Amino acid sequence: MSDFRKQALDYHAYPTPGKISIELTKPAETSKDLALAYSPGVAEPVRAIAENPDDVYKYTAKGNMVAVISNGTAILGLGNLGPMASKPVMEGKALLFKRFAGLDSIDIEVTHRTTQDFINTVANIADSFGGVNLEDIKAPECFEIEQALIERCEVPIFHDDQHGTAIVTAAGLLNALEIQGKDLRKAQIVCLGAGAAAIACMELLIKCGAQREHIYMLDSKGVIHTRREDLNEYKALFANNTDKRTLEEVITEADVFVGVSGPNLLSPDALKLMAEKPIVFACSNPDPEIKPELALAVRDDLIMATGRSDYPNQVNNVLCFPFIFRGALDVRAKAINDEMKLAAVEAIRQLAKEPVPESVLKAAGIDKLEFGVDYIIPKPLDPRLRTRVSKAVAEAAVASGAARIELPKNYMTE
Amino acid sequence: MSDFRKQALDYHAYPTPGKISIELTKPAETSKDLALAYSPGVAEPVRAIAENPDDVYKYTAKGNMVAVISNGTAILGLGNLGPMASKPVMEGKALLFKRFAGLDSIDIEVTHRTTQDFINTVANIADSFGGVNLEDIKAPECFEIEQALIERCEVPIFHDDQHGTAIVTAAGLLNALEIQGKDLRKAQIVCLGAGAAAIACMELLIKCGAQREHIYMLDSKGVIHTRREDLNEYKALFANNTDKRTLEEVITEADVFVGVSGPNLLSPDALKLMAEKPIVFACSNPDPEIKPELALAVRDDLIMATGRSDYPNQVNNVLCFPFIFRGALDVRAKAINDEMKLAAVEAIRQLAKEPVPESVLKAAGIDKLEFGVDYIIPKPLDPRLRTRVSKAVAEAAVASGAARIELPKNYMTE
Repeated sequence: MSDFRKQALDYHAYPTPGKISIELTKPAETSKDLALAYSPGVAEPVRAIAENPDDVYKYTAKGNMVAVISNGTAILGLGNLGPMASKPVMEGKALLFKRFAGLDSIDIEVTHRTTQDFINTVANIADSFGGVNLEDIKAPECFEIEQALIERCEVPIFHDDQHGTAIVTAAGLLNALEIQGKDLRKAQIVCLGAGAAAIACMELLIKCGAQREHIYMLDSKGVIHTRREDLNEYKALFANNTDKRTLEEVITEADVFVGVSGPNLLSPDALKLMAEKPIVFACSNPDPEIKPELALAVRDDLIMATGRSDYPNQVNNVLCFPFIFRGALDVRAKAINDEMKLAAVEAIRQLAKEPVPESVLKAAGIDKLEFGVDYIIPKPLDPRLRTRVSKAVAEAAVASGAARIELPKNYMTE
Repeated sequence: MSDFRKQALDYHAYPTPGKISIELTKPAETSKDLALAYSPGVAEPVRAIAENPDDVYKYTAKGNMVAVISNGTAILGLGNLGPMASKPVMEGKALLFKRFAGLDSIDIEVTHRTTQDFINTVANIADSFGGVNLEDIKAPECFEIEQALIERCEVPIFHDDQHGTAIVTAAGLLNALEIQGKDLRKAQIVCLGAGAAAIACMELLIKCGAQREHIYMLDSKGVIHTRREDLNEYKALFANNTDKRTLEEVITEADVFVGVSGPNLLSPDALKLMAEKPIVFACSNPDPEIKPELALAVRDDLIMATGRSDYPNQVNNVLCFPFIFRGALDVRAKAINDEMKLAAVEAIRQLAKEPVPESVLKAAGIDKLEFGVDYIIPKPLDPRLRTRVSKAVAEAAVASGAARIELPKNYMTE
């Protein structure tokens, strides 16, 4: 067993199995405590909530609680291994919610027969929580699931593999375009991969200004074009009216390459075909579509991002999801809408332009970070993300009408 | 607002809403920590569980986690107030699980259309937890729900309102019968109430030796007898082939009265009709079927128990449910079967016969407690309950084949 493998297993097994526990936030020692916490005292908040449903936020943990829900059909890059195998990942997500945003979060793994069965199950339990983070659910079912749940639920539903990835990618890409002196409205974009993350990334880029007809998306069968008859409805939205069929054809003179596919699928030769000052987001993890050292060897005018922490410009969902939920829950948002997502993009993007505090440099083990080709996205351990992104999201929720309450006073002032 | 009401609401509201939080059991500060907890390290336990499903107990919090699940159709004595209003009670139950048995417990409130919809929902999420405690679900649906879930789920399903009440009642009643010199096999029993708790109590007493034909159960329409045509299948099991129709008729010469109905439904005059050395369990809460001072004024040969902490002999589910789950989860039991329930009855019963430690007397504010008419059931704050009941349940699970693993070494030695 490799050292890292053993360390990872030991971390999960000892001293107690797993990564989370439930703790009490109120005294529960004496008979008096218990009379308040349970019978007979608990009847009072019950009556209050029955009379005024909003009181559930006042007297229970709902308002700070996120459910992380999966069916294990697309676990990390490992595939469909079933609900139980997804549990360490979902607990890990709960850990990240707590660590980064102070949100209480519990994982729920759903065993189900049909997609509708999964939807029903999640819809039936969603009200127990302030919001629901969907995770590691395979495409194309994830689109139908998320849409149906958004329609049925009164709390935010957010499929992080789609939108978390899309938000961080968009933030980084907008900065990269700015540095390269390019305009998103005119940019030719190649998206290698046509799964949940790929489609969400492209949809969000379009909302940021990209032109749908400038996007070439490729799945395992090549370019997605209007004459293909094997496309699901989600891919079909990206069917390009083109005669181009191969990666080499579409990448020629392209400004942007976004890879959410698999290792080493972008060759140095293909990279050479891109336009001047190209941008490559090679997000396949742990092995990117092209290794940064290989890419930079053939293109010194390149801005490159990956999903890895050991290279510059890491595209990491943790820059977004803890804070988009923090902001949403703090104003009791009914949903996480486009306005809130775009506010998160902008907040993440702007933070990369600010001077980096010493503590962040130290945590990253780097001497200097300055907005530019090697620093287009903030670092995951940057504590300013919490205040900036949460606040931007909460403000957007209020402005767009998604919020049930106003911004708390002095909200997220540093 | 009364003082107690304000105290109870404040307890729930401040400093943070609700009573529970999620906390991390593993370090999550540095990049290294996060690499073990999430990507890429988390892939290792995922792979391990995919290969060996039992590893979910080794690498995740499942084995110590109980879901407390309700639909809010029978909240305390307050009725059907809906899932959200039940949330403080369910969080309260989670608090008790942690406080008494060190079990992590999360509440889930289910919104559903049909009973089948509720069953599907719970069955689909049950595997996320080591066990499921059902709570505050109205009869008769609760019977169908519990039975269906037991058949579908591979983790213990336990409806505490039924079985927790039944186990503690049986433990107390067996001791009361012993003290009064009566034999359960011959005892004439009146059960006022025909809901979930009543039916479960009587079924368990029968398993302890009571004769079904010696039981008279009454619902709001009087005695349940074989000529009634308005009985659901659960009440019908208690239809007595008798001409007696009223409480007065059936209580005459009865040895035992169990009330799980409503306040003041047992009159002193009716009590006078009972046999010598009668036993009255007046469990309606907070107001019993007859007040102890009233009862003892007319029958000085009586043993009496209530649901209240301010009288002797409190029938309180907390004597049972934390420990029946503790024992079940510690041997990864597939179910909580009759053997385990009867083991809990016996363990609770025997504990009342032992000398009471000073700390328990102090917590109860009592100078002396000795097995007898005023002490037939242990006190809720007795710390020995945890070791005794959990161990008895775990041993019964192993002996009866419900356990997936052997008893841990030196399990619950004091």
